[in-house]
Amino acid sequence: MIILGIDPGLANTGWGVIETRGSSCRARAYGCIQTDAKSPLTVRLKHIHDDILMVIEKYTPEQVAIEEIFFSANSRSAVATAQARGAALVACATCGLELGEYTPMQIKQAVVGTGTADKHQVQYMVRSLLRLSEQPKPDHAADALAAALCHAHLVSWYGFSKKQNIERPAAGSYRERGTRE
Amino acid sequence: MIILGIDPGLANTGWGVIETRGSSCRARAYGCIQTDAKSPLTVRLKHIHDDILMVIEKYTPEQVAIEEIFFSANSRSAVATAQARGAALVACATCGLELGEYTPMQIKQAVVGTGTADKHQVQYMVRSLLRLSEQPKPDHAADALAAALCHAHLVSWYGFSKKQNIERPAAGSYRERGTRE
Repeated sequence: MIILGIDPGLANTGWGVIETRGSSCRARAYGCIQTDAKSPLTVRLKHIHDDILMVIEKYTPEQVAIEEIFFSANSRSAVATAQARGAALVACATCGLELGEYTPMQIKQAVVGTGTADKHQVQYMVRSLLRLSEQPKPDHAADALAAALCHAHLVSWYGFSKKQNIERPAAGSYRERGTRE
Repeated sequence: MIILGIDPGLANTGWGVIETRGSSCRARAYGCIQTDAKSPLTVRLKHIHDDILMVIEKYTPEQVAIEEIFFSANSRSAVATAQARGAALVACATCGLELGEYTPMQIKQAVVGTGTADKHQVQYMVRSLLRLSEQPKPDHAADALAAALCHAHLVSWYGFSKKQNIERPAAGSYRERGTRE
């Protein structure tokens, strides 16, 4: 199964494509879509949409994994991220990809084994699980690969429901990594 | 000039197309794109994108006006709205439309003459300014027409800058409606 992970953002949208075979995963490609802050909002959103479409057409993923958006003090940034997410997901829908949405805690738990892992631990495990010779850069690409890995683990553990997207347990309630490996 | 106004929302995206000739405006069409809450998020976003694209191709607007998103207690709803906004704006970018973004206060001020107007006053003025025989329904369509009217007024008063989108004064600082009519 080929999975596209997306870490959306108006300035930087990370993406990563992984391929699963049984219990192993490998990275097919990853990168980051950067938009010019001086460009109009519409142009930036179309840039994200078009580049995600190009990635899908090139690497033919069947499913897409993306992090849920949570709000902090910086709501302006959250609006921009949500708009970028909308633009990217239109491209995914155009190609018929099925969607899995995950909280940051679910991604950390699936990739590192604990929902309280820090950024560096996630990046280390992404590199390790995908047997990459170097750390994926920029961080947005590593985060996108982490979302894809989370999706791969949960799909292999719990299956995929088209109706409800991923049938996932509440964060913190599911088994620790490795119990099925 | 033909202007498309959009009131984005994941469940209901209002739209309205107006045409300006000198100081007069008339409505060409308006409506509301409704998406099924039971459908996957990707399908709902593509529905919004595709229907906005269809409206643009049918009514050939050159510019688009949309309300800025502000955050209240309901941040989940704001995320959904921002994603719908992103999907709609990708369609606008595909057709090369220029964008004007306005705060709710700016729209009220431009349409009613005061930034503290209530919803009914805005709806009454939308109907009156566009000489409609009945109140535009649903409210999302009326709000979209109000955004388009706001854009029309500000463009006729202050001109349009491609670089910075609409060159608009801060809310509350510009002239009352009617001074140029």
